[in-house]
Amino acid sequence: MNIKLLFRLLGILSLMIGLFMLASLIWCNPGIGYHTDKTIITQRFEVEGFRGLASSSIICFLVGAILLFLGRGAQGKLFRKEAMAVVGLSWLLATILGAMPFLFSGTYRGPSIRTFENQQRVFVIAPGLKIFQTWDELEVSKEEFRVLHQLNEAGARGLSSSQLGRKTGLSNAAELFVSLASKPPFDQWLIAPGEDEKLAPADRASNYRMRWVRMNIIDAMFEAQSGFSTTGATVLSDLEDPYLVPRSILFWRASTHFLGGLGIIVLFVVLLGQGSAGKALMRTEVPGPTQDTPAARIQHNAWLFASMYVGLNVVLAIILLVLGMSPLDAFCHSFATMATGGFSTYNASLGHFDSLPGINGTSVDYVVIVFMVLAGTNFTLLALCLFAQPIQLLKDIEWRTYVGIILIGAVAVITLGLIHGDFENAADGIRHGLFQVVSIMTTTGYGTDDFDSWNHFSRGLLLLLMFVGGCAGSTGGGMKVIRHVLFVKILGMELEHSFHPKVVRLLRIGGKPVEDESLRHTILVYFALISMLFVIGFLFVILIEPNATWGVHADNKLIDTGSAVAATLNNIGPGLGTVGATQNYGHFGVVSKSMFIFLMMLGRLEIFPVLVLLIPKFWRDQ
Amino acid sequence: MNIKLLFRLLGILSLMIGLFMLASLIWCNPGIGYHTDKTIITQRFEVEGFRGLASSSIICFLVGAILLFLGRGAQGKLFRKEAMAVVGLSWLLATILGAMPFLFSGTYRGPSIRTFENQQRVFVIAPGLKIFQTWDELEVSKEEFRVLHQLNEAGARGLSSSQLGRKTGLSNAAELFVSLASKPPFDQWLIAPGEDEKLAPADRASNYRMRWVRMNIIDAMFEAQSGFSTTGATVLSDLEDPYLVPRSILFWRASTHFLGGLGIIVLFVVLLGQGSAGKALMRTEVPGPTQDTPAARIQHNAWLFASMYVGLNVVLAIILLVLGMSPLDAFCHSFATMATGGFSTYNASLGHFDSLPGINGTSVDYVVIVFMVLAGTNFTLLALCLFAQPIQLLKDIEWRTYVGIILIGAVAVITLGLIHGDFENAADGIRHGLFQVVSIMTTTGYGTDDFDSWNHFSRGLLLLLMFVGGCAGSTGGGMKVIRHVLFVKILGMELEHSFHPKVVRLLRIGGKPVEDESLRHTILVYFALISMLFVIGFLFVILIEPNATWGVHADNKLIDTGSAVAATLNNIGPGLGTVGATQNYGHFGVVSKSMFIFLMMLGRLEIFPVLVLLIPKFWRDQ
Repeated sequence: MNIKLLFRLLGILSLMIGLFMLASLIWCNPGIGYHTDKTIITQRFEVEGFRGLASSSIICFLVGAILLFLGRGAQGKLFRKEAMAVVGLSWLLATILGAMPFLFSGTYRGPSIRTFENQQRVFVIAPGLKIFQTWDELEVSKEEFRVLHQLNEAGARGLSSSQLGRKTGLSNAAELFVSLASKPPFDQWLIAPGEDEKLAPADRASNYRMRWVRMNIIDAMFEAQSGFSTTGATVLSDLEDPYLVPRSILFWRASTHFLGGLGIIVLFVVLLGQGSAGKALMRTEVPGPTQDTPAARIQHNAWLFASMYVGLNVVLAIILLVLGMSPLDAFCHSFATMATGGFSTYNASLGHFDSLPGINGTSVDYVVIVFMVLAGTNFTLLALCLFAQPIQLLKDIEWRTYVGIILIGAVAVITLGLIHGDFENAADGIRHGLFQVVSIMTTTGYGTDDFDSWNHFSRGLLLLLMFVGGCAGSTGGGMKVIRHVLFVKILGMELEHSFHPKVVRLLRIGGKPVEDESLRHTILVYFALISMLFVIGFLFVILIEPNATWGVHADNKLIDTGSAVAATLNNIGPGLGTVGATQNYGHFGVVSKSMFIFLMMLGRLEIFPVLVLLIPKFWRDQ
Repeated sequence: MNIKLLFRLLGILSLMIGLFMLASLIWCNPGIGYHTDKTIITQRFEVEGFRGLASSSIICFLVGAILLFLGRGAQGKLFRKEAMAVVGLSWLLATILGAMPFLFSGTYRGPSIRTFENQQRVFVIAPGLKIFQTWDELEVSKEEFRVLHQLNEAGARGLSSSQLGRKTGLSNAAELFVSLASKPPFDQWLIAPGEDEKLAPADRASNYRMRWVRMNIIDAMFEAQSGFSTTGATVLSDLEDPYLVPRSILFWRASTHFLGGLGIIVLFVVLLGQGSAGKALMRTEVPGPTQDTPAARIQHNAWLFASMYVGLNVVLAIILLVLGMSPLDAFCHSFATMATGGFSTYNASLGHFDSLPGINGTSVDYVVIVFMVLAGTNFTLLALCLFAQPIQLLKDIEWRTYVGIILIGAVAVITLGLIHGDFENAADGIRHGLFQVVSIMTTTGYGTDDFDSWNHFSRGLLLLLMFVGGCAGSTGGGMKVIRHVLFVKILGMELEHSFHPKVVRLLRIGGKPVEDESLRHTILVYFALISMLFVIGFLFVILIEPNATWGVHADNKLIDTGSAVAATLNNIGPGLGTVGATQNYGHFGVVSKSMFIFLMMLGRLEIFPVLVLLIPKFWRDQ
């Protein structure tokens, strides 16, 4: 194996990551790093964010320098096996380096107590997942527990004294809170609006809420992997309070999407689009210098696609700025959209702009829909469409199927939603229904409405659409539309073959035969691997994760876990129930989170480059 | 197509079915057709059962005679395509003929009202699925609704006056019932212990319960298909009251299992075990006259296996008789076990014998476990084991894997069950855990405990085990263990192939190469088809079936539907939640039931013979 070249490439990656961390530093300045919703802006320079990003970038540069030194004088080229190792290892390195800013800035993940009332029993879960099983163990009264429970239900938002009273039905709720806050172990976990909270913004200081815990190493790696793999699943409960999550960290979080999307686009051209099966899937023929050698053509395409990707990001950011977003929001949402990632800077995701004065939420939604569709389109086709023959887009079987599934899915979700009263009116239904189908299908994972509260058919359909994904050669995740197109064709042929064993047909894409001895096989094996990984992930999580994670909703454990595994393996982000549109992955245990990290990486890299790293034979054979 | 031969074979099938209906007639005699639990025995000759079975058998003989007449002088042999048509059509014919006794005997399916209390709303579902959405529409008081609700919750069992009072907490519950029973539309649906109920046994007449509805044509076809496909899913709510379901009909119901199991055993030898891929899967080499032509050998094997199957049925029935069962129960459970079907003659399935004096429930369970394992074993191997080399069983990779999965699954279920308190003690855990894993894995579907109330990991594991199934060439359904063995091997090879494209390995079963250009492909296509059918069935049922079918448990719609589709497609029987161990399929709508009928047939016939019947090209080409 060409170890030197491997080191060199990993070194370049480290330097690139370091540079982006440096770029995130400017958002520590409150003059630029602010939310569109300026009511809670603090005029404070973000010390924590600066510390986290600056120290992480220094480490990246050091690691990069060491790797480049080890890889000095690297020559030659990469063979298939080495290329796989580079892809798998670089994603691993990026995850570790990308996790550092979250850790070093001391970003807060979420509230540290979860309370669940389950028939006679009561569960209060502290950091480290300690579970109190009975009232006696807990040593609080039922009234005090109601206060705890309501604070927990309120999640990141906090409750005022009167709200707390109204929600618990107790007139003395505020006093109960104070008495709770003085009792161990609650004195460790509850934040009373007391002395040490002077620095907190009014929104936080005047409210009764839980103490927040910082991200641990697994949380940070989860967030980084979710970013690089353009999944958009998060462990963070409150994105809107800069004392919990600095805005510069939010920008770094969005940057991981940008880098991940760029990495995937380049990867398709350089690695996945090669070989006859790859060519058939990705259709890598792009207009360009025609007399080129294959290597020069690949380089040309890589630059072309990277420029297009960056260009689309900039265009979208400008449109969002014009529509009234702050620079931070515009860039973060632009990165998250074009990478089909889905990290937002608001707890309600893009739905936040619905209720914001001075901005037209409907326009934002429709603009983002268009750009999500573009992000899920094969970049080869986009290039053809831009520079040569726009009609190619409509002629392409994969793109037609992709848009067709979106339209059929949207019509189904809108119709069923209107019948079941999920939407207020037809305009609302079209907007939210279309948005959500595009968001899930392109594997972005934004939400504008709580689709988990929709009717069960829509929920089930969205769950299945997670497995479809975008077009091959786009930033979209999932299994890719072209694989499904070929899959259905292959099954049809097999059915005919079963009663006409002598009839031989060629597999065609858009009329052109693409048959090759391995293509049929490759498609089927990919489906098989996805199914197997899904089953293994599902069994693992239901075995490891305690029911208490679901609290009173433990009945939903099987379907929620299935959706969580589907949403991470296919790089969507949100799933159903406990990982639904208004929830996050923060309350899962570290072991399950590690599994999700692994699944996100597997899904993003189309399985093989990650799985082979685990096979001893891969490393043994020279 | 050799139409004459087709007619002739279908004619023979009709005659066979007619003969078995005649044989079921003897159980109309109360002297032989009685439950082991004799407390509710009626000394009455079953007129309804006799009428249903006798008229159905006459129709079978008529249909058989017509088909034989149409097929007179048939010659030649069947080609592959014709054989597929015969298999698909004969299963269809058997389903239609087999449904007649249920219809003509006027068998009762279940109670006609379902009540669901859902927050402020109330659902009462009458025959034809009328849904009342509010209290006003329903025109009953809240107290009356509580009476209705409790009667419904009591299901098939009925409640005495004092039980009704205790359950509703109302001292005047009995009077409320009477007032309800005089109000339209309830006068149509409630059975008061009044005048017209003189003939009903004491158990039924003195209790407050709903009126029962008879099976419709779809119910009857569901039950027949479930029997022939050895699924064991039922629409019947109460099997123990001979006024609702005659005991002779119970015997016919079990006979469909017997015939279905026999059909599958013979089918494997004659059709599925042919061809190189089939040979590799079924390992059809059995000791026998060695100088035979292939046709004679197939005939020899078919007779051998059929005799073994009948023999094992008789042996098990005798053992169950000796253990204390009545002849009816012994034969019905023997048929249901050896066919891996799962139709019992009791509402609590085999668990009924737990609490029955004079019979050792534990012995019954362990005997049935052994015979379920045998029924899920390849009959070629069983023959080898019996007549030549017993060691072959242990040497066979499929059988070793089959037993291995059972043991690992049982250990997991028992351990987790003991941790979560699903079992009373270790002996209880071993017995119920092992029984349930064997029951699901062999696709029998008996229950001795309500596994749906076990911990979520056990539930999830059982759900996944549904897709494994028995060995190829057994009566077990599912995808078959050998396919999973090969599937894992193929994926391992593909993984190695991805970084060593030049290494070529042969697919081996137990050391012997079985490679053949189509085998790898065949396995992967089968997995693909099962996944696709599962997804289509799932989407169809969640779209068609109203939430009201789940009542207050509508949150479980997605997982329950998934389990119902898995349980029918893989021919298990019970699933999770609303189709769980203590429930049935009776409350689904006719459209969903039709889908389940189709799925059971698809799963049983290994997909192809059914699907091709739907392809126009199959019929067009000559």
